[in-house]
Amino acid sequence: MKWVYIEDISIYKDQEVEIRGWVFNKRSSGKVRFLVVRDGTGILQGTIFSTEKDSPLFEKFDVLTQESSLILRGCVREDKRAPGGFELTIKEIEILQLAKDYPITPKSHGIPFLMEHRHLWLRSQKQHAILQIRVELIKAIRDFFDGRGFRLMDTPILTPSACEGTTTLFETEYFDQKAYLSQSGQLYNEATAMAFGKVYCFGPTFRAEKSKTRKHLIEFWMVEPEVAFATLEDMIKLGEDLIISIIERVLDRKKIELDILERDTKPLESIKKPFPCITYDEAIKRLKEKGSKMEWGDDFGAPEETLISELFERPVCITHFPAKIKAFYMQPAPERPDLVLGIDVLASEGYGEIIGGGQRIHDLSLLEEKIKEYNLPREAYEWYFDLRKFGSVPHSGFGLGIERMLAWICKIKHIRETIPFPRLIYKIYP
Amino acid sequence: MKWVYIEDISIYKDQEVEIRGWVFNKRSSGKVRFLVVRDGTGILQGTIFSTEKDSPLFEKFDVLTQESSLILRGCVREDKRAPGGFELTIKEIEILQLAKDYPITPKSHGIPFLMEHRHLWLRSQKQHAILQIRVELIKAIRDFFDGRGFRLMDTPILTPSACEGTTTLFETEYFDQKAYLSQSGQLYNEATAMAFGKVYCFGPTFRAEKSKTRKHLIEFWMVEPEVAFATLEDMIKLGEDLIISIIERVLDRKKIELDILERDTKPLESIKKPFPCITYDEAIKRLKEKGSKMEWGDDFGAPEETLISELFERPVCITHFPAKIKAFYMQPAPERPDLVLGIDVLASEGYGEIIGGGQRIHDLSLLEEKIKEYNLPREAYEWYFDLRKFGSVPHSGFGLGIERMLAWICKIKHIRETIPFPRLIYKIYP
Repeated sequence: MKWVYIEDISIYKDQEVEIRGWVFNKRSSGKVRFLVVRDGTGILQGTIFSTEKDSPLFEKFDVLTQESSLILRGCVREDKRAPGGFELTIKEIEILQLAKDYPITPKSHGIPFLMEHRHLWLRSQKQHAILQIRVELIKAIRDFFDGRGFRLMDTPILTPSACEGTTTLFETEYFDQKAYLSQSGQLYNEATAMAFGKVYCFGPTFRAEKSKTRKHLIEFWMVEPEVAFATLEDMIKLGEDLIISIIERVLDRKKIELDILERDTKPLESIKKPFPCITYDEAIKRLKEKGSKMEWGDDFGAPEETLISELFERPVCITHFPAKIKAFYMQPAPERPDLVLGIDVLASEGYGEIIGGGQRIHDLSLLEEKIKEYNLPREAYEWYFDLRKFGSVPHSGFGLGIERMLAWICKIKHIRETIPFPRLIYKIYP
Repeated sequence: MKWVYIEDISIYKDQEVEIRGWVFNKRSSGKVRFLVVRDGTGILQGTIFSTEKDSPLFEKFDVLTQESSLILRGCVREDKRAPGGFELTIKEIEILQLAKDYPITPKSHGIPFLMEHRHLWLRSQKQHAILQIRVELIKAIRDFFDGRGFRLMDTPILTPSACEGTTTLFETEYFDQKAYLSQSGQLYNEATAMAFGKVYCFGPTFRAEKSKTRKHLIEFWMVEPEVAFATLEDMIKLGEDLIISIIERVLDRKKIELDILERDTKPLESIKKPFPCITYDEAIKRLKEKGSKMEWGDDFGAPEETLISELFERPVCITHFPAKIKAFYMQPAPERPDLVLGIDVLASEGYGEIIGGGQRIHDLSLLEEKIKEYNLPREAYEWYFDLRKFGSVPHSGFGLGIERMLAWICKIKHIRETIPFPRLIYKIYP
């Protein structure tokens, strides 16, 4: 008999099939037993009908516990009342293992308990839905860049120097020297962009931040495009298109999962281009009007990000930041060299920064000055200077944090549920 | 005027366009100047015709050096003699930067020099071709698994314990404890496979190996599928299908790049299912016939892998290894418990192991025994035991190393050219 996956069940209408999975739920009603199983791709209701109380199938049904593993054989029937529109008339139950005292029961558990059991918690309907949306979100991003001719160029994790300061770096011995876990593939992207025109990297990044917030992971995935000859304005457009493309794709293909999460999708459906775009100066003015104590020159914290995003129904772009709060490689604004051509995109609904990037310095002497000003070791950046010596061109890029984007799309409170095995401060198990 | 990429040039036949890129080459012939530019997506020949020796375009042409950055404007002409079938009649040259003394000239350079200049070496035609094939290979893999309903489940890089021994691990401080860089996502894949049925992870992995060979990278990318309810036989088929799918896709879409590499594609074209499949016992017998000194119980080294792969014209699967040379989680063979249901796939043409995997132990008490036997800390594996307590099922998976697969497809000698920024022993710059 053919082993099939539940997500393909409609193809096998009126056929005998084999389903391999785990007990999700069960209930009895008179002469009928309902056995709900999951196989990872979906949930299917199986039915057993018998007039005899001691039917062998009933006996097997009776001993089954939550998450017991089994193989079911039976006939696929269309039934509009069944969830998904199909059910299985069970003819045979082969029990592989009876699960005893499965720790995660339908009653509610505390978060520390669930986090300790993340390897099992993943099987729960809500966690399953979030991660299915993650799968779609990642595919949407790859299709977006691949479809526009961007080349995927993997950047290294083990790096000899820091991209944005050294305080939040993980360090390791690398044979006879030190290496650090990458916080961004950007500097390397700049090299590959000069070789391939438009590139992106997409991998895990690491920040050893001691802050304990709902928005920070120690290890998170980031996609970073970089485009030779592109300017700040090009990045605003690229970021808008990317965000809209992700949202449209998830709304289109992950309706069931968004329903499971009880996500009100109206705020997502209404997002259109162009996003409101304000300068840092303007943002400060607006914040002060709202009673914020923030002064010009301060960096935004989570409360400020929330305040700004609440002013708009769409994601908002902020540009032209004070140079001193941004990284050394940012291109100064032509008429205000105290500002840089950076861009942050804040998600709506208070989800904070999802994109950070901008235009990079392409002038060699200006970059050399900045390296000095930021007190960075020149020898570590020799190769980076080379990019400004041999055919330098204006270029720009940004990074989008996958987990923050996903938290927003799913409208979940804490970022820890957006990745299979979250790494948080002091938290590395399982 | 519209900025277009060279790979799209055929769309703009007889139109005025702007090309932004770098000088690849130039030559003169009487009243014509040929300026060959690259923009990362392709190479295009531009022509300047003039009867006057001091034409302003000729003057600009004369000062251009290799890798100078520029913007060309002109008209796209179809010309069968031109490489790619199109050329640009140049009307305007805007020089952005004249590159002075570009280090990588058409003369040959030593490998250490090229490795020190990897950030520029990437622009060379051969390196560019290899990495374009890498892009296609990775897409082929993702499409293969996505098309078969596998869910991408990212596994963590920072882990509290080792998957295959501790001697080759990178260690880092993780707040108040130690963490190690992952050598494989397998153990975590086993958890997500129980939640999603069929999964894969695809990310960087790390082995601090002190060996200096042509086949080892310190940091490399690996794709690892894992399937609940699957057996060793299922993995042999999945691995065959995956390898064939990658090869067909690259042969189909990357002909130009394979030509640049002067790859004789006949050995790849002839690869078909099924792959020859021999047991470890049989492999030892064959090796001894060929004069190898290897004894039963020894692990294969590179010379043995080459010897075996030379016996066949297709990749070869080896199964049923002695338990003692394999990892603790491998399922014993039913009738020979001294052997395990592992599988290695060796590439043809002497490229060695590209796949390693097999069936995992799903019996709790057997796994507990193995953890003791291998002297591993039980507490680190409590979550892994849970997978055997709550609905345990037979399951299998494998890992395929991207760079080794790419080295074989491109038939290049050293794996360092298969990744944008290779990490080798003592080598972490740029």
